[in-house]
Amino acid sequence: MNPLADFVAVIPAGGAGKRLWPLSRAAQPKFLLDLTGVGRTLIQQAWDRLEPLAGANRVEVVTGAAHAAAVAAQLPGLDHSTAAASTNEPSLVSQGLAAPESDQRGDSSCRPSNGASRLGHRDNLLIEPGPKDSMPAIALAAAIAQRRYGDVVVGSFAADHIIDDQRAFAQAVEAAYLAALEGFIATIGVKPTDPTTAYGYIKAGPSLGLVQAPQIKRVAAFKEKPDRATAERYLADSDYRWNAGMFVFRASLVAEQLRRLRPGLADGIGRMADAWDTDQREAVAAAVWPGLERIAFDYAIAEPVAAEGGLATVPGDFGWSDLGDFASLADLTAPDADGVTRLAQGSGPAPVALDSDGAVMVTADGRLVALLGLPDAVVVDTPTAVLVSSRDRLQDVKALVEHLEKSGLRDYL
Amino acid sequence: MNPLADFVAVIPAGGAGKRLWPLSRAAQPKFLLDLTGVGRTLIQQAWDRLEPLAGANRVEVVTGAAHAAAVAAQLPGLDHSTAAASTNEPSLVSQGLAAPESDQRGDSSCRPSNGASRLGHRDNLLIEPGPKDSMPAIALAAAIAQRRYGDVVVGSFAADHIIDDQRAFAQAVEAAYLAALEGFIATIGVKPTDPTTAYGYIKAGPSLGLVQAPQIKRVAAFKEKPDRATAERYLADSDYRWNAGMFVFRASLVAEQLRRLRPGLADGIGRMADAWDTDQREAVAAAVWPGLERIAFDYAIAEPVAAEGGLATVPGDFGWSDLGDFASLADLTAPDADGVTRLAQGSGPAPVALDSDGAVMVTADGRLVALLGLPDAVVVDTPTAVLVSSRDRLQDVKALVEHLEKSGLRDYL
Repeated sequence: MNPLADFVAVIPAGGAGKRLWPLSRAAQPKFLLDLTGVGRTLIQQAWDRLEPLAGANRVEVVTGAAHAAAVAAQLPGLDHSTAAASTNEPSLVSQGLAAPESDQRGDSSCRPSNGASRLGHRDNLLIEPGPKDSMPAIALAAAIAQRRYGDVVVGSFAADHIIDDQRAFAQAVEAAYLAALEGFIATIGVKPTDPTTAYGYIKAGPSLGLVQAPQIKRVAAFKEKPDRATAERYLADSDYRWNAGMFVFRASLVAEQLRRLRPGLADGIGRMADAWDTDQREAVAAAVWPGLERIAFDYAIAEPVAAEGGLATVPGDFGWSDLGDFASLADLTAPDADGVTRLAQGSGPAPVALDSDGAVMVTADGRLVALLGLPDAVVVDTPTAVLVSSRDRLQDVKALVEHLEKSGLRDYL
Repeated sequence: MNPLADFVAVIPAGGAGKRLWPLSRAAQPKFLLDLTGVGRTLIQQAWDRLEPLAGANRVEVVTGAAHAAAVAAQLPGLDHSTAAASTNEPSLVSQGLAAPESDQRGDSSCRPSNGASRLGHRDNLLIEPGPKDSMPAIALAAAIAQRRYGDVVVGSFAADHIIDDQRAFAQAVEAAYLAALEGFIATIGVKPTDPTTAYGYIKAGPSLGLVQAPQIKRVAAFKEKPDRATAERYLADSDYRWNAGMFVFRASLVAEQLRRLRPGLADGIGRMADAWDTDQREAVAAAVWPGLERIAFDYAIAEPVAAEGGLATVPGDFGWSDLGDFASLADLTAPDADGVTRLAQGSGPAPVALDSDGAVMVTADGRLVALLGLPDAVVVDTPTAVLVSSRDRLQDVKALVEHLEKSGLRDYL
């Protein structure tokens, strides 16, 4: 297909993926890993989905200084300056699950200035000076795109989700693009396949009545992560969809809404965008960014604008997962005859399990992992750390990682 | 104390300790490991207990070809020839739990001939050409001792047990020595401390009436491993003791009983013993040993002779364990405040556990092991293999190891 006219895709690449520790590490978070074993990391898969829709020079990634070099190495297409080619060192390329520690230390040791200078001036790798959640990152990328290309349509898509059906995804983005041209902030609502309590939901209202895309509806409301009973009800009601955090909108519309709803944030973003493609980029960013409000796009823009009828939702049915924890990772692979899901990566023998129906075993090392008499156990073996958990506690792996942080075990995060 | 007159201590060093996999390995079985973290391996601890009782030149070890070099390296006192000193290479010294694979391969690659030639002629390291259980090993050691020193008293003690109170142990051996001089095969019966079903029991009969040792009683019967209810009854009855496999007897008496009860075995052992300290050692051993019956001392001698009133039992109360599995290994260490027993060896951080009361964590590597929400789980981390088990399945670790053998995973055994 041809790229959409005046469309810029933004990939906010933040988030540590703590619930996937010890696969996902502070210096090697999940979006840099080939978690699905397809030979492409999650952010490379996001690029592969979006590059045909936006065009090679119209995909922007926003990430932190610690991961800039690794992202540049994984996505050489981001970079238009020759100098940057030199950053594409093998030692920075993610080795997937088996990424050696040394690489990770290498990544985390890089500085924004290194990143920016190495990566050139008008490249599409936007380095944020610090984590501020999704609103500042998306607004900055949109504002920079608007200054570079005019009032384009911007689509923002996470760096660490997976999608099975690329064609259905592209069709959903095209429909969202139409809604954006009609003056809506469009969000793709993913058709639920199970009553999960792990996601927020979108309640669809009446159709916008667009002739070319009658399936596009107004967003009636965003719903927080529900309890099980509520989720069962949502699953039975075709008006409810998973909020996958995919937003498509005119750059000027979000700039205007941000000025109205978060004037301080809008002002700071505007100043940074004005300076971005000048030699003042780093000076202004250093002066402005630390003072910006830390907030998600959903709360700052999507929910208040939806309450005013300004959001549209496009139904998406293309096999989506946010790979939030080891349970969702395991869901991608069928269990073996013994009921054990084995995700063996790299060299080494397949993990061995006896009397452990429902267990999940992830091996990334050359070692033998043997499980005996522990149904629904989860074992994740990496070269430097091992996680052993019960399946029903996988949501708490994040709390475990925060416990490790407090315990001064940073080398293992 | 002075050594006992005309006393030879024998340490049969066989047994793979499969239920302690992956700490105990085919090439590095438990008796070669410092499982208790005291800086001495189990066989070195056995030597330390017995050398004062028998004298340095009167402790014999019987082991297989695969472990001869490692035993020689750990017990230089076994060897009276200068040539043998050259076997004491660091690469053969057990590194305890963290023993590198390379050492293990090194050990397992040595041959009986190498061992024998390297270890000289009249040394006390007796290499058995193949595993035949305890009867042939003990009978051979006793017959060689009889030819070297006359009709000595022989005491046989396992290479891989632990004993807390050395003084009480020495007193029990002295009493058993007295009973042996009176013409009995004496066995030390360990006072039970819990109703375990993991050990066989000895039922004591009436006292022998020895003035110097009235506590020595005739053995009424040997009892197989009991069920829980029976074990409870045994624990309440002071006449029942654990069979720790410790036997003390005159060399001539066991030779005579063996001729009577197992004439074929007696004949073969006699021929090997006659040739042992000649240049015919290996030729005769190679011709005779493979045809010998594989049988335990308990079945071949102790039980039938006990039935005829020829066995005596000495009470032992010195803190004994055979370290049969990870539960008995964990019993040696008090749990932490969170109810988790941590056996951390070598470098690396202490293992982390959340909501896992009753768990056992053994770490032998520099890696971080984290356990979440699995009470009574057992995690054993080594450089090449990881075991994760439920505590109530630890007896089945042996079956797991045999499953690995069948699965062609010999490199990990």
